[in-house]
Amino acid sequence: MPAPATFLGYIDEHADRFIKRLADAVAIPRRLNAFSVSGDRTHREDVVKMAKFMEDQLKALGVQTRLVDLGTENLEGHEIKVPPAVLGKIGEDPGKKTILVYGHFDVQPAIKSDGWNTDPFTLTIADDGQLIGRGSSDDKGPILGWLNVLEAHKDLGIELPVNLRLVFEGMEESGSIGLDEFIAAEHARGKDGWFHGVDAVCISDNYWLNTRTPCVTYGLRGLVYILVEVSGPTRDLHSGVFGRTVHEPMTDLIALLGKLVTSDGKILVPGVDDMISAADDEEKALYECLDYSIADIEASAGAPIALSDDKIQVLMGRMRQPSLSIHGIEGAFYGAGAKTVIPAKVTGKFSIRLVPPQTPDKINPLVVQYLEAEFAKLNSKNKLRVLLEHGGKPWVADIKHWNYEAAIKATQAVYNKRPDMTREGGSIPVTLTFAETLGVNVLLLPMGRGDDGAHSTNEKLDRSNFIEGTKLLGTYLHEVAAINA
Amino acid sequence: MPAPATFLGYIDEHADRFIKRLADAVAIPRRLNAFSVSGDRTHREDVVKMAKFMEDQLKALGVQTRLVDLGTENLEGHEIKVPPAVLGKIGEDPGKKTILVYGHFDVQPAIKSDGWNTDPFTLTIADDGQLIGRGSSDDKGPILGWLNVLEAHKDLGIELPVNLRLVFEGMEESGSIGLDEFIAAEHARGKDGWFHGVDAVCISDNYWLNTRTPCVTYGLRGLVYILVEVSGPTRDLHSGVFGRTVHEPMTDLIALLGKLVTSDGKILVPGVDDMISAADDEEKALYECLDYSIADIEASAGAPIALSDDKIQVLMGRMRQPSLSIHGIEGAFYGAGAKTVIPAKVTGKFSIRLVPPQTPDKINPLVVQYLEAEFAKLNSKNKLRVLLEHGGKPWVADIKHWNYEAAIKATQAVYNKRPDMTREGGSIPVTLTFAETLGVNVLLLPMGRGDDGAHSTNEKLDRSNFIEGTKLLGTYLHEVAAINA
Ligand SMILES: [Zn+2]
Ligand SMILES: [Zn+2]
Ligand SMILES: [Zn+2]
Ligand SMILES: [Zn+2]
Repeated sequence: MPAPATFLGYIDEHADRFIKRLADAVAIPRRLNAFSVSGDRTHREDVVKMAKFMEDQLKALGVQTRLVDLGTENLEGHEIKVPPAVLGKIGEDPGKKTILVYGHFDVQPAIKSDGWNTDPFTLTIADDGQLIGRGSSDDKGPILGWLNVLEAHKDLGIELPVNLRLVFEGMEESGSIGLDEFIAAEHARGKDGWFHGVDAVCISDNYWLNTRTPCVTYGLRGLVYILVEVSGPTRDLHSGVFGRTVHEPMTDLIALLGKLVTSDGKILVPGVDDMISAADDEEKALYECLDYSIADIEASAGAPIALSDDKIQVLMGRMRQPSLSIHGIEGAFYGAGAKTVIPAKVTGKFSIRLVPPQTPDKINPLVVQYLEAEFAKLNSKNKLRVLLEHGGKPWVADIKHWNYEAAIKATQAVYNKRPDMTREGGSIPVTLTFAETLGVNVLLLPMGRGDDGAHSTNEKLDRSNFIEGTKLLGTYLHEVAAINA
Repeated sequence: MPAPATFLGYIDEHADRFIKRLADAVAIPRRLNAFSVSGDRTHREDVVKMAKFMEDQLKALGVQTRLVDLGTENLEGHEIKVPPAVLGKIGEDPGKKTILVYGHFDVQPAIKSDGWNTDPFTLTIADDGQLIGRGSSDDKGPILGWLNVLEAHKDLGIELPVNLRLVFEGMEESGSIGLDEFIAAEHARGKDGWFHGVDAVCISDNYWLNTRTPCVTYGLRGLVYILVEVSGPTRDLHSGVFGRTVHEPMTDLIALLGKLVTSDGKILVPGVDDMISAADDEEKALYECLDYSIADIEASAGAPIALSDDKIQVLMGRMRQPSLSIHGIEGAFYGAGAKTVIPAKVTGKFSIRLVPPQTPDKINPLVVQYLEAEFAKLNSKNKLRVLLEHGGKPWVADIKHWNYEAAIKATQAVYNKRPDMTREGGSIPVTLTFAETLGVNVLLLPMGRGDDGAHSTNEKLDRSNFIEGTKLLGTYLHEVAAINA
């Protein structure tokens, strides 16, 4: 059962109205330079207004709504309320599958002077159809896609083919405070809980691999973040007076950081790379058929610096291998110019992206043990401390599940193309929460393209991605319903 | 001919008046929180007032003075006048030696909230005799020591045993702008030049090795400062998306920085350490008899991190060996917390302190060649640029010269101790300018102790160092005159 033709036609006919609603959402509310930006305390009330906008829209579409108080957080010394999550419920038909949809209505900060060509909070429609504005692609466009689907069904009098549960969040860009706890608490309430009966989850909050081919995403890497602190003197020293008389913390730290990863990306911490089994030919074929080239990755990095000329190697490096990146050093000289200080205490920062079966619990001890052993070899009189920051598990879904079958069929129906089956190198923590807490299959079904520039200047969503993407989300629901499972 | 007893007695009798004058100098002029601070544009006129104070004092003592316009510099976008140098001339007797005295009347910035126990610009006399205030030791105390010597001789009607040329500068803490050029220009004027006839130079602007034993200093290390820039992508990348797909500039930079120096201070750049011949037993004996212990160096670093338990090794590391210190990285993440960026361009900064026969011209090519060769081994597609910042040659004086003989004799006369013969690990660039441009012997004859805290909070000069140090400077002049040379 593909989506009814009337539905698809309705989306095309009402495209301009949908774009107008996206423009309203991007512009809500209007202030000097930041809107629905969850990371900025002075703009938190804007995020709350955006929550109200979502609630009003849902109510107008006949959705049963609920605002969830997610408590408070301490921001810059102020205890302030977290913007509420907006829940929606449609249908409790035991004969239908129940799909949980997640999205977020907060956005990254944006200031025109950062390099935007247009006002970031005025949706600008370019001649080529780009819809330019903060949140257009991440993630206001996709959540409005769901509204478009609901509106079409309501106006056309077509019954929704599944029961829907909507979770729209206003704190995704700021750590999703309170959301995991809410999901766990509701799940613990069993059949009285809000998530009771959910069969699968669909999240539209990532991007195509490229600008040409839609994708379905079934994996995310996890993360460990490690701080390596080396301290020696009680205060910064003058390198003229102390150079070659004392053990310098920077020398030791650089030696340790230099033992983590090779220039071509191999992780030197014993046991980390080894934990991953090699890809077999069947899996390699998955990467081979992705519509992505070395030229694509180099274009997006802006320079010919790919680790290999072999597309399969590079794609597997991003999707199914761990990676180790050194981010910086706290406590050392970082300014312009020349300073001859010997810093007293320096903290190197690096992270490792994880893939199954790696988890922070398995990786962190290997890293700590290795750093301590390598530090001991230095015979330094300085002191080492290894600190473990937040981490997250990787996630990979079963792509044989009907949830994926529906998404693949819907993509073929709307785009007349088989989707790229991708894994993302980064993380979307709530994905893992849904998968683990609710114990259901989770699907990432992106709307935007790889060059949308989420979190960057001149963020955009192509008009065709918004409109065809709306058709995709609706068609997916119909395909879900059509599968006997 | 030791100094006349009447001179030494005069200094003791007028100690309180000398301290009062130091207090006036420290407090000139009074403003909110910074005084005679050459590095701060808003306080430049204070430095000019301090120059006038010095000129008035010198005139009152019958010294022929001259203010030297050193031109302008661009500070924070403003072209402003450099404070004048104050010159003084006493005597043109061809039967006397001519000694050039150098000191500076500008000081480092100081704000009470940085951790001062007292107002930094009010000279505070502690119960134990410490004279606490910015500039007390660096370098207002020593230049006022010279004034004390002149005043004693004038009041007592004792003829100065040498011709004196005084150079007091107001830009030492800010790069001595214009001074080298002035010295070179005057020297080029031959017998009409201001420096004509100078036989030797005496600079009192460093410190004892410890808190117990006076020293005479005959060497300074030079410096090269190197920037290692590695760049790859055109913008910062997300480590989730790009980790293990591209060559990361930080990985390459850390690898390069890790090949520079061992934890125990050995320099790995081929040819650098090798350029220094090993010390023979006679030279080692010089270090052995210095009044300095591993405990001293660890006390001043605040932690037991000395590179060796062998005092001779540690002292030679500071005084007669090159040292390499890594100062920091520009362009990487340096803040608190956790950020998962792959920085697009990072610049590592390190310096090497040089000792003869090393010079920037000899060392820089070795470093550049080595970095380029090591970078080539990485097989990275990133780009390397090595940038050379300002450098300076090392300096070592002939300690058999009568200038040193006089200083040693004067120390023994005043302190009843043989001075420690030291070389400093840092640099005082004007020392080399005098030595090379004028071609005469230069002597560093410090007044303060190793714990005076120049450039730090709670800078102090001990009362006994100020008073006995004044006697030392005067006695030195008489010893110079007494030597047949
Ligand atoms: Zn998002
Ligand atoms: Zn985002
Ligand atoms: Zn000084
Ligand atoms: Zn100084």
